[in-house]
Amino acid sequence: MKLRVRAELVYRFEPPTDAIYQIEVAHWPGQEILEESLTTNPPVVFHEDKDAVFGARTLRAHLEGEVALVYEAVVENGVLKGLPEGVRQHDWNDLPAETLPYLLPSRYCPSDQFGRFVQRQFGETSGGERVLAILGWIRENIDYEHGVSDSETTAARTFIDRAGVCRDFTHLGMTLCRASGIPARAVSAYAHQLTPPDFHAIFEVYLDAGWWLVDPTGLAPIEGLVRIACGRDAADIAFLSTQGNCQMVRQSITAEAV
Amino acid sequence: MKLRVRAELVYRFEPPTDAIYQIEVAHWPGQEILEESLTTNPPVVFHEDKDAVFGARTLRAHLEGEVALVYEAVVENGVLKGLPEGVRQHDWNDLPAETLPYLLPSRYCPSDQFGRFVQRQFGETSGGERVLAILGWIRENIDYEHGVSDSETTAARTFIDRAGVCRDFTHLGMTLCRASGIPARAVSAYAHQLTPPDFHAIFEVYLDAGWWLVDPTGLAPIEGLVRIACGRDAADIAFLSTQGNCQMVRQSITAEAV
Amino acid sequence: MKLRVRAELVYRFEPPTDAIYQIEVAHWPGQEILEESLTTNPPVVFHEDKDAVFGARTLRAHLEGEVALVYEAVVENGVLKGLPEGVRQHDWNDLPAETLPYLLPSRYCPSDQFGRFVQRQFGETSGGERVLAILGWIRENIDYEHGVSDSETTAARTFIDRAGVCRDFTHLGMTLCRASGIPARAVSAYAHQLTPPDFHAIFEVYLDAGWWLVDPTGLAPIEGLVRIACGRDAADIAFLSTQGNCQMVRQSITAEAV
Amino acid sequence: MKLRVRAELVYRFEPPTDAIYQIEVAHWPGQEILEESLTTNPPVVFHEDKDAVFGARTLRAHLEGEVALVYEAVVENGVLKGLPEGVRQHDWNDLPAETLPYLLPSRYCPSDQFGRFVQRQFGETSGGERVLAILGWIRENIDYEHGVSDSETTAARTFIDRAGVCRDFTHLGMTLCRASGIPARAVSAYAHQLTPPDFHAIFEVYLDAGWWLVDPTGLAPIEGLVRIACGRDAADIAFLSTQGNCQMVRQSITAEAV
Repeated sequence: MKLRVRAELVYRFEPPTDAIYQIEVAHWPGQEILEESLTTNPPVVFHEDKDAVFGARTLRAHLEGEVALVYEAVVENGVLKGLPEGVRQHDWNDLPAETLPYLLPSRYCPSDQFGRFVQRQFGETSGGERVLAILGWIRENIDYEHGVSDSETTAARTFIDRAGVCRDFTHLGMTLCRASGIPARAVSAYAHQLTPPDFHAIFEVYLDAGWWLVDPTGLAPIEGLVRIACGRDAADIAFLSTQGNCQMVRQSITAEAV
Repeated sequence: MKLRVRAELVYRFEPPTDAIYQIEVAHWPGQEILEESLTTNPPVVFHEDKDAVFGARTLRAHLEGEVALVYEAVVENGVLKGLPEGVRQHDWNDLPAETLPYLLPSRYCPSDQFGRFVQRQFGETSGGERVLAILGWIRENIDYEHGVSDSETTAARTFIDRAGVCRDFTHLGMTLCRASGIPARAVSAYAHQLTPPDFHAIFEVYLDAGWWLVDPTGLAPIEGLVRIACGRDAADIAFLSTQGNCQMVRQSITAEAV
Repeated sequence: MKLRVRAELVYRFEPPTDAIYQIEVAHWPGQEILEESLTTNPPVVFHEDKDAVFGARTLRAHLEGEVALVYEAVVENGVLKGLPEGVRQHDWNDLPAETLPYLLPSRYCPSDQFGRFVQRQFGETSGGERVLAILGWIRENIDYEHGVSDSETTAARTFIDRAGVCRDFTHLGMTLCRASGIPARAVSAYAHQLTPPDFHAIFEVYLDAGWWLVDPTGLAPIEGLVRIACGRDAADIAFLSTQGNCQMVRQSITAEAV
Repeated sequence: MKLRVRAELVYRFEPPTDAIYQIEVAHWPGQEILEESLTTNPPVVFHEDKDAVFGARTLRAHLEGEVALVYEAVVENGVLKGLPEGVRQHDWNDLPAETLPYLLPSRYCPSDQFGRFVQRQFGETSGGERVLAILGWIRENIDYEHGVSDSETTAARTFIDRAGVCRDFTHLGMTLCRASGIPARAVSAYAHQLTPPDFHAIFEVYLDAGWWLVDPTGLAPIEGLVRIACGRDAADIAFLSTQGNCQMVRQSITAEAV
């Protein structure tokens, strides 16, 4: 699917601070960037990096005052297929070493606390069937609602609150997968037809020798996703991190089929 | 310094479970393994891996019943030097990309909550001086005491409890460093003269274009440390992880100068 | 039902500390103390109090070294009846003022976080039916198991852990009742046929102009309960509180039908 | 000091819900209400109660849509004196029984976690000197700042955040006093010259056979305080509690010397 994605981020950095953006489309197999542009006002010279594993691209600079950034790209995102029920789960011993960190608890995903719950709730399933059971449980039990969670909300709290946004759904989904012995990692994305339009947080699970992308909110069609960054949880894939405070002036994110 | 290290771990795995050991001496520049042996009773065939970045080695197997593992090595650990006060701190923009994840909060290190505290307490320092001020504050304010913390204790809780063991000291130290804009990562080690003898948890900070090892407990002389594994926090460097429960039967860890 | 209850508590108080026992049978309507004795070794002169509302009796003293306390009583506990399904729930406006504090969150019962869960899970019920639905849900979803929780475990954590002991069951039950607009308060008790024998924690709910005692563990027959203390949660009804540390030497609690 | 206090609270209750106001001046020894009026638009018939111990008055009603409430009173608040340094601290055994609950941890005051900190930080003081040392430490280490805390913030979190508002200062102050063996209870008040004008949260400690009022923020002169409600922490003294959600439309609280 060919998509035009665009992020306009206007933030105020006072006092001046170092900042890291992760908003550019990732260099990822099957995801082809056809056009791309980045402009800022005032002009900023960024320190650019690309992650060797995920192709995620970071832009770093010391920013001061109001900075408007506009990123646009036209992307052919390749063919993304939904997770089939039948894919098998690896034993720990049988997993590639690079997937092991995604079995571990992280800042927002205290999967070490959920062993008993997943065993009780999903104990008779494994592999793709387990993941689909987890996604089904989340959609049935968690309300998609703004204003319940904030930037510190963990999956443990969302499990109690029974409400949150895409980031919270993703943290809870990954937590329940990791507690089930299934590697899970967070992905940020542009998402076609997301309402309201925003950056999207989804995750992928390692099953049957491959990573499979899933959207626990069910809000975006999987074929309309464009990858940006990837990591253990929201701490790794933030679209904007700053050392000090910054204030949003205006923000607009879109992804349209071309 | 030439050291003979030895770990004897006798655990019971009932019901049978997948397990991951991280106990072998790392393949790390300057750290030379002169002799090495690993035996188990009953015999176990491990799936072995080595981390490309840290040289950390993992042993994986499906274990059942009581398993006794003995690992021994003679190591020349190279020359480790203490952190000098004068080393300068990098700006975020000036850090190598691979150090950035170690600025982020992790499962046991909610550094996102400590920005105001580090600014108030250590605001006039930076770089090596900041890290030394943090280490000094920890030694002055935190008691080394068993029985206060457990495997779920975070740095936030240790900050309140004012007591803990090496793992807690390390989590709190890393949290305060990351909140100060200094990359910090956890290291597990064999430690000469550690009392009582056990695996040791320490951390290293990235300053002035290099990683510097520090021991927030001050319990082990830095020249007597032998690296095992490295990661974001205790979740990454556990010497034994299992999917289900396991019960310790007996355990003994030693590190002696040869 | 006529019961002989007995508590033998042998604790070591080093360094010396102030201590408060709440172990004597309450002076409570319908609960008649037929015989009673209290002995300590060495002899202790206690400061005795009785709560005006609950008839709960506290024993206070400054204790030093090992102190053995034996309390025995023969009690006719009156007729306690189980909660009928049909009892109606009061509106907030219709509750006696003295029940209002038992609607509020407390140290171990963060009922303010569970509004959405109770609405989703039990939304179609109210009054006695709601409480019975909550008790049924707890018995179905929470394992009675020692070693999962400790003295700091809140109902939020038990909701995640899916396991705990009587105190945890009671905290979770009260939390879900308060979140449902039903006053709930904790009760400590001697319990006939409790296995293993120990002090028991249960709670009571205010419905249809009266307080009704319920046992979320289902471990003790309601007619075999002898009230000791009452309050907002475990913080209020501890059988032994000390300002400093104390170490248990030996403890035995029994309740037998006479 | 004679003060005119006024609260105008305009809230929207949709969907309709039960609500409890605690805004009327308490009937408290030495605090004399000279005039008083309460009006609502639309007219509301309240269920009124008065707490037997604190003289705190609650107004309860089932509310629907937008409700404007205006409460005004002229009060002679009697003579309130600051805490003298010399007042002695009671042993636990020597405290009146009714003060004991204020030694315990509560929803927002996990005083059970701070024993080591208070011993380390304030160990050489007791009684009035201890309380003044705690207040001094708070003023030195905690910033008065809106936007850091919310309605769920506990004293443990404020201890880490190093910032909060009057409610947070009070929770932290009470937590450190209770951990020091000093009974402490929360008080809501109208406060002369409070900037910005709002309800105020303060607390009182039990020392030398009496309760002494203290303001950990230092924002209001103690002679300008008018008591409203009293309890274990913010959960007990909220000026408006509702079973469901409510939305503030407009709110104004003032206290002026007459």
